[in-house]
Amino acid sequence: MNELEFLAALRDLPLHPGARGLEDDCAVFEFGSETLILTHDLMAEGIHYEPEANMADVAWKLVAVNLSDLASKAAEPIGAMLGVSLGRDDTGFLSGLRDALSVYNCPLLGGDTIAGTGASTFGITALGRATCHPVPSRKGSKVGDGIYVTGIIGRALLGFEGQAQHFDAFHRPQPRVSEGRALGPLVSAMMDVSDGLLLDAWRMARASGVTYRLNPELIPVADSARLDECVRWGDDYELLFTADPDSEIPVPATQIGKVEHVGEAPLFLGGTPLTKPGSLGYRHG
Amino acid sequence: MNELEFLAALRDLPLHPGARGLEDDCAVFEFGSETLILTHDLMAEGIHYEPEANMADVAWKLVAVNLSDLASKAAEPIGAMLGVSLGRDDTGFLSGLRDALSVYNCPLLGGDTIAGTGASTFGITALGRATCHPVPSRKGSKVGDGIYVTGIIGRALLGFEGQAQHFDAFHRPQPRVSEGRALGPLVSAMMDVSDGLLLDAWRMARASGVTYRLNPELIPVADSARLDECVRWGDDYELLFTADPDSEIPVPATQIGKVEHVGEAPLFLGGTPLTKPGSLGYRHG
Repeated sequence: MNELEFLAALRDLPLHPGARGLEDDCAVFEFGSETLILTHDLMAEGIHYEPEANMADVAWKLVAVNLSDLASKAAEPIGAMLGVSLGRDDTGFLSGLRDALSVYNCPLLGGDTIAGTGASTFGITALGRATCHPVPSRKGSKVGDGIYVTGIIGRALLGFEGQAQHFDAFHRPQPRVSEGRALGPLVSAMMDVSDGLLLDAWRMARASGVTYRLNPELIPVADSARLDECVRWGDDYELLFTADPDSEIPVPATQIGKVEHVGEAPLFLGGTPLTKPGSLGYRHG
Repeated sequence: MNELEFLAALRDLPLHPGARGLEDDCAVFEFGSETLILTHDLMAEGIHYEPEANMADVAWKLVAVNLSDLASKAAEPIGAMLGVSLGRDDTGFLSGLRDALSVYNCPLLGGDTIAGTGASTFGITALGRATCHPVPSRKGSKVGDGIYVTGIIGRALLGFEGQAQHFDAFHRPQPRVSEGRALGPLVSAMMDVSDGLLLDAWRMARASGVTYRLNPELIPVADSARLDECVRWGDDYELLFTADPDSEIPVPATQIGKVEHVGEAPLFLGGTPLTKPGSLGYRHG
């Protein structure tokens, strides 16, 4: 099976209501008097990073991609469970892990470790506490809302290619945890941009049952000559959200479009309808 | 690094108080008005199962080993986060996963999937809700307590070797979830027997600051001619616990010894002091 087939098959298993049908970035459920938010992301050698990668950066990014999911839910990090297959430069891995857990105040809760037998795999289950209700989801964009994105899109691409000023955007991405919490109470929908701005916008529009019309001239990209690549490459870990255009956005963000009644495509880039997701970003297949 | 070195290094990272110093089977912490219990266990091809293993059994066991940790905390399962690297017979894996999640009423909460690149690795983070307070731990055995174990020790060994009547004990172990909940309010200490009865008893005695004296004639083993192997081999997923010897034990269990003041060794098997853990069971190294 490929990943999409496996995911479809998982949806037939007994699912917790908090799993949101496995269609959101996190599980969300009431526990006691609070709301718990959970995510689990893996990173594997040869898929998410090169065998010669700096392992401190790999550990940082492992924490960051999980916390980016929590950020999209406006969650306050509680802690992380770690799964590790040991391999090359475990000391470096530990140093990057320490950096990320410390900076984002997300202490270790536990985990499991196995001796490595080949390509390494790392996983984190990150737990967070809801800070607003309802917890933001991909559904909820309303016709007339503005579409916004934090930061600059495409920096990870340029960092991956070796441009020094964008190096950290790829190797040490900074999940928008505090921005997510500030935005939580006012957004109508929110997700993090991990697989490419267009693909993630397409998904959020579909989940909300509306059409997003993006203005390509408004999208803040790291290299305007390479707009098409910047909006498709992914790995940016910025926040994409919709909100009433009259609301005061409490963090730096750029309005890049407007929510319309559902039309011929979930997403328009200027006048171009983007019907199918195939060419819009990174798809797990 | 080997696993013990890595674990020691993890203890120097920022730890959540609920991590219990990474010295217990689960993380335990208050969340809202309740107590959350978390565990994370991995299974890897070539380490925990043979490359030709039945993948439905592998999935079952992955769930079972995690739920066994929850059982040792008297926890009620809430759900599971799954991490999967795809590989051989994903359909079989899914069927065993469905079986185990259904039988133990532990629905899927979410997870992540990656394309396989070699030997497969699977991980589950299982969440549970405390059903009694204090939540049982490895610490707490009192001098004069009885030492008890559920079930029969060594069945997994015989099942691994191919004896038909013990086959399921190795391939489809049944975590003692309901037994754990029944025992929770009356035990002074509890853990699950995953790495071998002697090794796990040694650890619990050490954690409790006492000496356990086991009577080898009382230990229920699957093959009395192979007692030494049965009490060392592990993978049994029974519950080991201590309790006031006058208490009425609400589940089938056998008293196998008594808790004494700390002596020359944490553990005695009959008259033999077992000072060092090296030869007592399965050690991750």
